[in-house]
Amino acid sequence: MKRFLKVEDIGDLKKALQDAVEVKQNPYAFQELGKNKTIILVFFNSSLRTRLSTQKAAMNMGMNVMVLDINKDGWKLETEMGVVMDSDKPEHIKEAVPVIGQYCDMIGVRSFATFENKEDDYTEKVINQFIQYSGVPVISLESATRHPLQAFADLITIEEHKSKARPKVVLTWAPHPRALPQAVANSFAEWMKEADVEFVITHPKGYELAEEFTAGVEVEYDQRKAFEGADFIYAKNWSSFKQYGQVISQDKDWTVDEEKMALTNQAKFMHCLPVRRNMIVSDGVIESENSLVVQEAANRVVSAQTVIKRILESL
Amino acid sequence: MKRFLKVEDIGDLKKALQDAVEVKQNPYAFQELGKNKTIILVFFNSSLRTRLSTQKAAMNMGMNVMVLDINKDGWKLETEMGVVMDSDKPEHIKEAVPVIGQYCDMIGVRSFATFENKEDDYTEKVINQFIQYSGVPVISLESATRHPLQAFADLITIEEHKSKARPKVVLTWAPHPRALPQAVANSFAEWMKEADVEFVITHPKGYELAEEFTAGVEVEYDQRKAFEGADFIYAKNWSSFKQYGQVISQDKDWTVDEEKMALTNQAKFMHCLPVRRNMIVSDGVIESENSLVVQEAANRVVSAQTVIKRILESL
Amino acid sequence: MKRFLKVEDIGDLKKALQDAVEVKQNPYAFQELGKNKTIILVFFNSSLRTRLSTQKAAMNMGMNVMVLDINKDGWKLETEMGVVMDSDKPEHIKEAVPVIGQYCDMIGVRSFATFENKEDDYTEKVINQFIQYSGVPVISLESATRHPLQAFADLITIEEHKSKARPKVVLTWAPHPRALPQAVANSFAEWMKEADVEFVITHPKGYELAEEFTAGVEVEYDQRKAFEGADFIYAKNWSSFKQYGQVISQDKDWTVDEEKMALTNQAKFMHCLPVRRNMIVSDGVIESENSLVVQEAANRVVSAQTVIKRILESL
Repeated sequence: MKRFLKVEDIGDLKKALQDAVEVKQNPYAFQELGKNKTIILVFFNSSLRTRLSTQKAAMNMGMNVMVLDINKDGWKLETEMGVVMDSDKPEHIKEAVPVIGQYCDMIGVRSFATFENKEDDYTEKVINQFIQYSGVPVISLESATRHPLQAFADLITIEEHKSKARPKVVLTWAPHPRALPQAVANSFAEWMKEADVEFVITHPKGYELAEEFTAGVEVEYDQRKAFEGADFIYAKNWSSFKQYGQVISQDKDWTVDEEKMALTNQAKFMHCLPVRRNMIVSDGVIESENSLVVQEAANRVVSAQTVIKRILESL
Repeated sequence: MKRFLKVEDIGDLKKALQDAVEVKQNPYAFQELGKNKTIILVFFNSSLRTRLSTQKAAMNMGMNVMVLDINKDGWKLETEMGVVMDSDKPEHIKEAVPVIGQYCDMIGVRSFATFENKEDDYTEKVINQFIQYSGVPVISLESATRHPLQAFADLITIEEHKSKARPKVVLTWAPHPRALPQAVANSFAEWMKEADVEFVITHPKGYELAEEFTAGVEVEYDQRKAFEGADFIYAKNWSSFKQYGQVISQDKDWTVDEEKMALTNQAKFMHCLPVRRNMIVSDGVIESENSLVVQEAANRVVSAQTVIKRILESL
Repeated sequence: MKRFLKVEDIGDLKKALQDAVEVKQNPYAFQELGKNKTIILVFFNSSLRTRLSTQKAAMNMGMNVMVLDINKDGWKLETEMGVVMDSDKPEHIKEAVPVIGQYCDMIGVRSFATFENKEDDYTEKVINQFIQYSGVPVISLESATRHPLQAFADLITIEEHKSKARPKVVLTWAPHPRALPQAVANSFAEWMKEADVEFVITHPKGYELAEEFTAGVEVEYDQRKAFEGADFIYAKNWSSFKQYGQVISQDKDWTVDEEKMALTNQAKFMHCLPVRRNMIVSDGVIESENSLVVQEAANRVVSAQTVIKRILESL
């Protein structure tokens, strides 16, 4: 495997899940693969789970890890081509990225959507520059439009907790005080479409995700109806794709609470974290026995290690 | 050992000092214990000695180390219960802490007193949330009211440099331009009460420490009188406990200088660092042969490693 | 080797280049030397290449690495002697440095010229305090007046890419929007004087470097004339030494472009990075086959590892 950005990069999901089980059962069994290999984790944005879980995954593999908060530790990067660099950005991504590639065997990159330019975000300008210029395999630690390590961890978590062969999984929008990227929702949709689940998305009108992620998926605008019979409720806020990056609703009627969870088939509650309590989800639901948010986060080590292991095997 | 916050957590001090000697003599002898074990050091506040010495201690034990400056690298944490999270704090400590616990075998936490709320500080609200929610052993890297790794290192240093069985140890307040927590002074008092020393505290009126740390300890308001016959002078500033967090004196007459040190029994000078020269202590005293400030700092590796070793043994 | 600040510290350059070749060919062959040894990298300033390449070099040697962004992670340091420390700087360098020295076997330090005081900068006040007070070997990660790991990497790169025994190497000033230190230019001059090359410096009048670095070196004020027959063009901006720290020209006629490179003997283009495109150098030149900027950056691991190896051998 030479990169990990989207569901296609992992290939067959059943095989990926088998690999994940193997990694989870024997996390320290593959350290010969990682010996004297180095991963650099490059952050353009804040990170708690991704930062720690990916470090942990790489250390489990016996690798060396370097973490770079690039705008803070290094130099602000210019990403435009052909500019006269007389602004506050002293380094061009066309130098920085190949140089980083010289110091490691693979790169993990986090670079959120900026909402400045929909096309730049949806063509994945920044992470594609890492792929194009680094010369080494690139792992997305959340790009402008996708968060594949999260979606893979979510899939592992659903597999571990499902009580029927083909569970009903509902992705529900929920309110939030700020404009968030669509990345987690996009990836979750992309992965659930490929997984062996019944998948439904529910959100207020105007919050439709990009067609490339949701083509063929059932969208139900009535949240309560969507919840009926659900085995997993996956909550997430995102800003509008159509009115790009805009918050067009903060309707608290979409908060996931006990009354709505009662409509489901004793569904498990999922969220990628960080989560705004009593906006996205009530205290009662997130603290209930059916909440899987910590288990999902724990599985971030498993998804990252499975991906890193595959890349090491292909070096 | 499942936690390290206060003197009781270390048990018998004589045994602890024996363990420290063993660790100091053979720092790399215990790496099998730490193999494939991970510590995460979480900082809410700045740190030089604690950051480096605890990393060094863990690496000496063969462990993996991750450092997280949580407000800077991760997300600002909400610590109140039951709130609607629509402010600038995107993550709740009730999610963040159990997640961090999933990525490691033990957590070190630094979280200073904020002086916003005396009760929150003195009930150790933040570090207790780490104990309650993390699921793994917690080591204080200085909490709101205590700095036990410092006090343990101080005890080791006194043990190494004492010239009589039961030395006289004086904790003296000294002036400082800002309001500082009482943590170092509290812990030092707590540890000295248990140690085999004659212990005296001296400070201006109004700077009495909390009763739970000083019950039974002699307080002498005349600094010069307190210094008479002292074998160790331990200087530290703290803000008022009674007028909580207030600076009620900046009296330079309390600065430790050569003239006052001459009243002692050729006492060694100690301070936890960082220290304000010519506020807390004169250049002459801190640069004298009797100054132990660097040795104390060096012993921070020993105290941390002794504590980490005990926790590893109990996993 | 006990320190690495200037060209004399490395001794014979031919031998140094041989050592570099050995390290580059077998980067993981010397890990017994580094086992249980620790390097601390202390940054007063931003860093991308130096941060990552020196970490990589130390990890290649099997060492433990700690990175400290001292003003951000630790405490702001007072560097003046004899002051009453009642300002915003809570720690004195005379405490901080010996303490850091207690936690490691060697220290790397980055501390740029501040331009506040020419004498402080040119007497290397900060890094000399690390040498004086740390008690362990010190490696410059760029000091006020020199960047020796860069110059050593540049020498290695020239050695690898030269097509004649004694190539012509031209250091050219080029425009930049901000006032930069002279460190890279100083070190490059210092090393090229000792190397087996024909060395010429070109810059506008007023940009003469300090005599201690350039004594005996040919200075040609006509950039085009200097470029004639050159085998290597090394571009760099620096601020004026005479009008200390001032930007006295931003003349774009000094930008290195294709037309000027055509005057050379198919010269290779070099720059230490980060580089301002279309200020220092045109897109066309830096993206040409003759550009060695990424190779130079890659050789930063080699120069750092060669230096670290020598220091480990002398411990």
